[in-house]
Amino acid sequence: MIGTAKMGHTYPGATLPFGSIQLSPDTDTIPYAVNGKYNPDVYKYCAGYQHDDHTIVGFSHTHFSGTGHSDLGDFLIMPTTGVLKMNPGTESDPDSGYRSRFSHEKEHAEPGYYTADLLDYDIKAELTASSRVGMHQYTFSKAERSHVILDLVAGIYNHDEKNVWTFVRVENDTLVTGYRQTNGWSRTRRVYFAMSFSKPILEYGRERYDEHPYKGFWKKFDETKNFPEIAGERIRMYFDFDMEKEEKLKIKLAISPVSSEGAVKNMKAEIPGWDFKSVREQAYDTWNTELQKVELPEENEETKTNFYTAMYHAFLGPTEYMDVDGQYMGLDMNTHKADGFTNYTSFSLWDTYRALHPLFNILQPKRNADMIKSMLAHYDQSVHGMLPVWSHYANENWCMIGYHSVSVISDAIVKGNDDFDVAYALNAMSTTARTGYYDGLQYYMDKGYVPEDKNGASVSKTLEYAYDDWAIAQVAKKLGKNAIYDEFIKRSEYYKNVYEPKSGFMRPRLDDGSFKKDFDELDTHGQGFIEGNSWNYSLYVPQYPEEMINMMGGKKRFSAHLDSLFTMELPDKYFENTEDITREGIIGNYVHGNEPSHHIPYLYNWTDTPWKSQDKIRMILKEKYKTGADGLSGNDDFGQMSAWFIFSSLGFYPVAPGSPEYALGSPSIKNATLQLDNGKSFTVTAKNQSDKNVYVNKVSLNGKTLDRPFIDHADIMVGGELVFYMASTPNKKGYR
Amino acid sequence: MIGTAKMGHTYPGATLPFGSIQLSPDTDTIPYAVNGKYNPDVYKYCAGYQHDDHTIVGFSHTHFSGTGHSDLGDFLIMPTTGVLKMNPGTESDPDSGYRSRFSHEKEHAEPGYYTADLLDYDIKAELTASSRVGMHQYTFSKAERSHVILDLVAGIYNHDEKNVWTFVRVENDTLVTGYRQTNGWSRTRRVYFAMSFSKPILEYGRERYDEHPYKGFWKKFDETKNFPEIAGERIRMYFDFDMEKEEKLKIKLAISPVSSEGAVKNMKAEIPGWDFKSVREQAYDTWNTELQKVELPEENEETKTNFYTAMYHAFLGPTEYMDVDGQYMGLDMNTHKADGFTNYTSFSLWDTYRALHPLFNILQPKRNADMIKSMLAHYDQSVHGMLPVWSHYANENWCMIGYHSVSVISDAIVKGNDDFDVAYALNAMSTTARTGYYDGLQYYMDKGYVPEDKNGASVSKTLEYAYDDWAIAQVAKKLGKNAIYDEFIKRSEYYKNVYEPKSGFMRPRLDDGSFKKDFDELDTHGQGFIEGNSWNYSLYVPQYPEEMINMMGGKKRFSAHLDSLFTMELPDKYFENTEDITREGIIGNYVHGNEPSHHIPYLYNWTDTPWKSQDKIRMILKEKYKTGADGLSGNDDFGQMSAWFIFSSLGFYPVAPGSPEYALGSPSIKNATLQLDNGKSFTVTAKNQSDKNVYVNKVSLNGKTLDRPFIDHADIMVGGELVFYMASTPNKKGYR
Repeated sequence: MIGTAKMGHTYPGATLPFGSIQLSPDTDTIPYAVNGKYNPDVYKYCAGYQHDDHTIVGFSHTHFSGTGHSDLGDFLIMPTTGVLKMNPGTESDPDSGYRSRFSHEKEHAEPGYYTADLLDYDIKAELTASSRVGMHQYTFSKAERSHVILDLVAGIYNHDEKNVWTFVRVENDTLVTGYRQTNGWSRTRRVYFAMSFSKPILEYGRERYDEHPYKGFWKKFDETKNFPEIAGERIRMYFDFDMEKEEKLKIKLAISPVSSEGAVKNMKAEIPGWDFKSVREQAYDTWNTELQKVELPEENEETKTNFYTAMYHAFLGPTEYMDVDGQYMGLDMNTHKADGFTNYTSFSLWDTYRALHPLFNILQPKRNADMIKSMLAHYDQSVHGMLPVWSHYANENWCMIGYHSVSVISDAIVKGNDDFDVAYALNAMSTTARTGYYDGLQYYMDKGYVPEDKNGASVSKTLEYAYDDWAIAQVAKKLGKNAIYDEFIKRSEYYKNVYEPKSGFMRPRLDDGSFKKDFDELDTHGQGFIEGNSWNYSLYVPQYPEEMINMMGGKKRFSAHLDSLFTMELPDKYFENTEDITREGIIGNYVHGNEPSHHIPYLYNWTDTPWKSQDKIRMILKEKYKTGADGLSGNDDFGQMSAWFIFSSLGFYPVAPGSPEYALGSPSIKNATLQLDNGKSFTVTAKNQSDKNVYVNKVSLNGKTLDRPFIDHADIMVGGELVFYMASTPNKKGYR
Repeated sequence: MIGTAKMGHTYPGATLPFGSIQLSPDTDTIPYAVNGKYNPDVYKYCAGYQHDDHTIVGFSHTHFSGTGHSDLGDFLIMPTTGVLKMNPGTESDPDSGYRSRFSHEKEHAEPGYYTADLLDYDIKAELTASSRVGMHQYTFSKAERSHVILDLVAGIYNHDEKNVWTFVRVENDTLVTGYRQTNGWSRTRRVYFAMSFSKPILEYGRERYDEHPYKGFWKKFDETKNFPEIAGERIRMYFDFDMEKEEKLKIKLAISPVSSEGAVKNMKAEIPGWDFKSVREQAYDTWNTELQKVELPEENEETKTNFYTAMYHAFLGPTEYMDVDGQYMGLDMNTHKADGFTNYTSFSLWDTYRALHPLFNILQPKRNADMIKSMLAHYDQSVHGMLPVWSHYANENWCMIGYHSVSVISDAIVKGNDDFDVAYALNAMSTTARTGYYDGLQYYMDKGYVPEDKNGASVSKTLEYAYDDWAIAQVAKKLGKNAIYDEFIKRSEYYKNVYEPKSGFMRPRLDDGSFKKDFDELDTHGQGFIEGNSWNYSLYVPQYPEEMINMMGGKKRFSAHLDSLFTMELPDKYFENTEDITREGIIGNYVHGNEPSHHIPYLYNWTDTPWKSQDKIRMILKEKYKTGADGLSGNDDFGQMSAWFIFSSLGFYPVAPGSPEYALGSPSIKNATLQLDNGKSFTVTAKNQSDKNVYVNKVSLNGKTLDRPFIDHADIMVGGELVFYMASTPNKKGYR
């Protein structure tokens, strides 16, 4: 349940690792906007569930984990009894609709399983899932005629015009198929489904919320009841069943990216029968296998809860996006077949390039290579000739900035996890990075920076492009492509063009070359940054920490500057209304609740005070990650917050993906063993570990003391043992 | 051009026999309804073109021929020069939009080719087509920057909400792909396209007529110009080209039922190059081959014009509906592959079962069998388990009444054109006819008639069901399925249940068994009939003419009754606002402009006065079919009006499809030879033929004088000669 309260934006429902189905309760389905007017409350419902709510609207089959914008929430199902209600009703007046009250006392979530009692109807709801099929089990307490609502209007971030089209067929008395097309965050999105009931439908019907006038034939039918072919923009359906006391009604709902035929096929392949218990057990076992990749033999329950929940969240996405036979929808809206790889979707790359994909290079190398193959297929299909920016369900949603696919690909190639066409990948990376019409990029290429008067958040863009370009250059270097290397290594230094030596901060420049006037380096609003202020973003040169430190006045001054960041005060007004930055995620002026700062605590490693990294990291691990529904200090962002936690708990972190190097921090665990897919294992031990002993006296790798606070990816992958010797006071001599 | 004025509803554009593409000028694109309010003027534009109009809006790629309700009009293209206009403008103020004036002097249409000068822009427009690809050739008179409009809002019967979604990609500087989804007469309809230009696009852009508010990312792009990925409900695009004086811009636009990839494939397969002339010649040759199936060596130009235009119209539909590799969209909205047959769509069956499909059994037997295979595939995919009623583009639109697929299938089986699974077909027929929830059918099955107070047009439905049931029984008989035969032969007599002996007319009955009060047997409004009155519909028992005649008082009385029909007066008020019934199509109270009466002139054959059939038929042939744009006296109804003309011109007609028998009339040609696909030929000769000599003195088949006014289908198919000996006075002894 961690992250299901406040701004964590995680969901508690049933899913498999990287599964296509995320079957989870939605506690509200309020619209994103009505008549164009934004509803700020919707942000709470990015994952459909808010722990503070008292009602469940129903259980829908697709959810993002931890995102700061949203979509999905497809095919919401709700069992009810008594008078048939076809509208969801409201949280403040649950009886006005089909939703039900629930309580956390009668609720339980575990990997692959969720249950809650629907108090208004005396129904016990249980959910489990295979990769492409959600399975429901509803136990009705009384013998009576009961209903199942299939709400095809409901959705997450439901713009008033989000539902473009819905098509439903009641194929026979237990099988329903169809699709819905939405125009939400994903612009042109169709999801097909097949839904099967464990007992025959007694009667069914629909309400259309968009009745259109007569179109060329008079009413031949009563289309509202027992009429098996339904279509329109906004439709809700009900299915009635005669239930016995304590009888269980089971429902399977499979999805497909390409066809209802595909959904039926997926259902038959993954859950042919009706054994809920066995599906649940299989889901549990699948999770266990994944989570056991890191063994924590010596930790207490709280540490394990935090750590394995982070592992769980890290393995929720990107999600598999294809039928069992490999068919999936491409960006060209044609059906494609994944040939020799698993196709993935939902790439929240501005977040996940930082630590999640690097983590996959250690714990999920095969999947990460397949994710890159999926990105290359995206590039192939993209009419822009671009790798994904933030993509889901065969659509680019263009969210956030940069082109961080290149970081993910570079990191994998540099680390040797390169079971894909690397020459083609380099071409895709460089082509993407030359798309002039993308987000100020032509200015950046022409001038060496994005001018703020031409394109907002210009400093963030310039800095992130420069890092991405460095990542491309690393691949060009490895492949001996000198011209590409020269082109992009030059661009990788453009960060200098937005640095103002006088103030010591990154600052927006205008088209005429001058720096923006009236500048506030604390403010997150309109200063040339996105989801951050200059204090934080000025430290974003992960590719060249040394050069950045020199530029900013040298190690000593920089170390003190970092100290200020962690200790100064950032008044609320500077981050009010900036998504994903909240008081909970802040330490001083350091914003852990959002991504741009995630590498910052490790930057002391490049000064003479690496011990300051150590205590900051331990402070963050302790303060910003807690058990309990409100344990996350910001959006989990599809696993990036969790990946930071996993790396940092283990004592190392990938400051610059695309480099094989990890910066060392201060592990919070006593002992951890990483079981690698190559059969090797890598153990991290923290001797003399305690809440007080947050400082690292020395570190040895396979018995050899390290003379610098870094290890290499290869050190991990060949297996071995990393031992941290912990102490309550800093080793101010550092690693040399 | 015949039928392009007034109510013919034919289009003059370029198409192949049964081709998927119908590339034709649209002279207006007015909406069917705005805000739910019907616009009666739209009816004129069922085929997009009205001969009296003075402007062409553009050239769209899909059209129905002759229908009385409509849809389609996809992908309208218009070349323009000068100031870019993105709206179509109006007929009354053409300069207000991109449309252009044109004149019939500078217009020409022939099979597979259409040309018109676009006077406002000095552009000569030429169109031709292969089956799945439309080819445009625009000759610009001046050297200047010119535009091509791609209007994705335009459509035929454009309900204000018809456009559900549009998706466009500018793949490169000559290729554009995408699809549009509409909710018109076809409820859930997607058509994919690929459009290729003969020279590179200079610049392009779009206007969206449905800009939605921000959906989760700020504007990263100028999406209005040179941005290659466009989607939304209502979109118009422009493409600019630098044209030289007298330079030709060529455009190919291919369609596909399943994917833009399929459209590209179709284009490559059918028109790989840019040779407009050769495509035009090939289209012409293809038409010639089809039209030469009936040779008319002795006729004058006028007769040939009328006859071959009728042949042309008869061969416009149903249309091929699959990619070159056989893929098509099924009713379940999944992609299917036609295995061993050509899949067809657009079945206007209430019209075409009467004479068009019987004509196909003679002149297009292979296509007719494939059409039946397409109907059986429809049945297979239908969630209702029903054969098509009126279907197009993977949708049932349910238009008109009955289930006349069964007539088409029965006619083919009875006539031995049965290269399909006949046992499966009988099952499909009987299952269709037992769908209780369809259009009063349960009442019909329970009570032997449809009660008018339960379901309108009840008499028409009862009569047509009874005929259809007889058609099913014929197949059951042939296959020895006695139970099915008994079931449906019983139902075939239900026509008796709506006959009121007192008045001698068919009359609606109510649920309680009583006849409707306040009945007017002349009125077409609200009397229990559809597009007809009791006078006409009371004669609709094609399966049992003898029994009907006996029921109505015997031969003599019936003959006089028919005389009254042709000579009495039908005041306008009785058919005002009844679609497809106009003064032009009426003789007395006989309505030739619409289908329910088409068999009536032949009914004298079952009395002692067959000569009265002869003069009526010749009168109809002469008065109701003329050369000239306004030559058709009613909607051509996808070839049914034309098929009546062809049969009747040749001297015989299928009064009851499902019977192998043709009733003889009075041929209007001197000599015709039918070249049959089986290598045989069948010649009809009318000795002593003239406008005055409309009576048949005697008839011989292969030299043997007939003793009754009927021939059999087999008589035709084995080849031979039918000779009519014409005279100016009736042979009142008849055939015996």
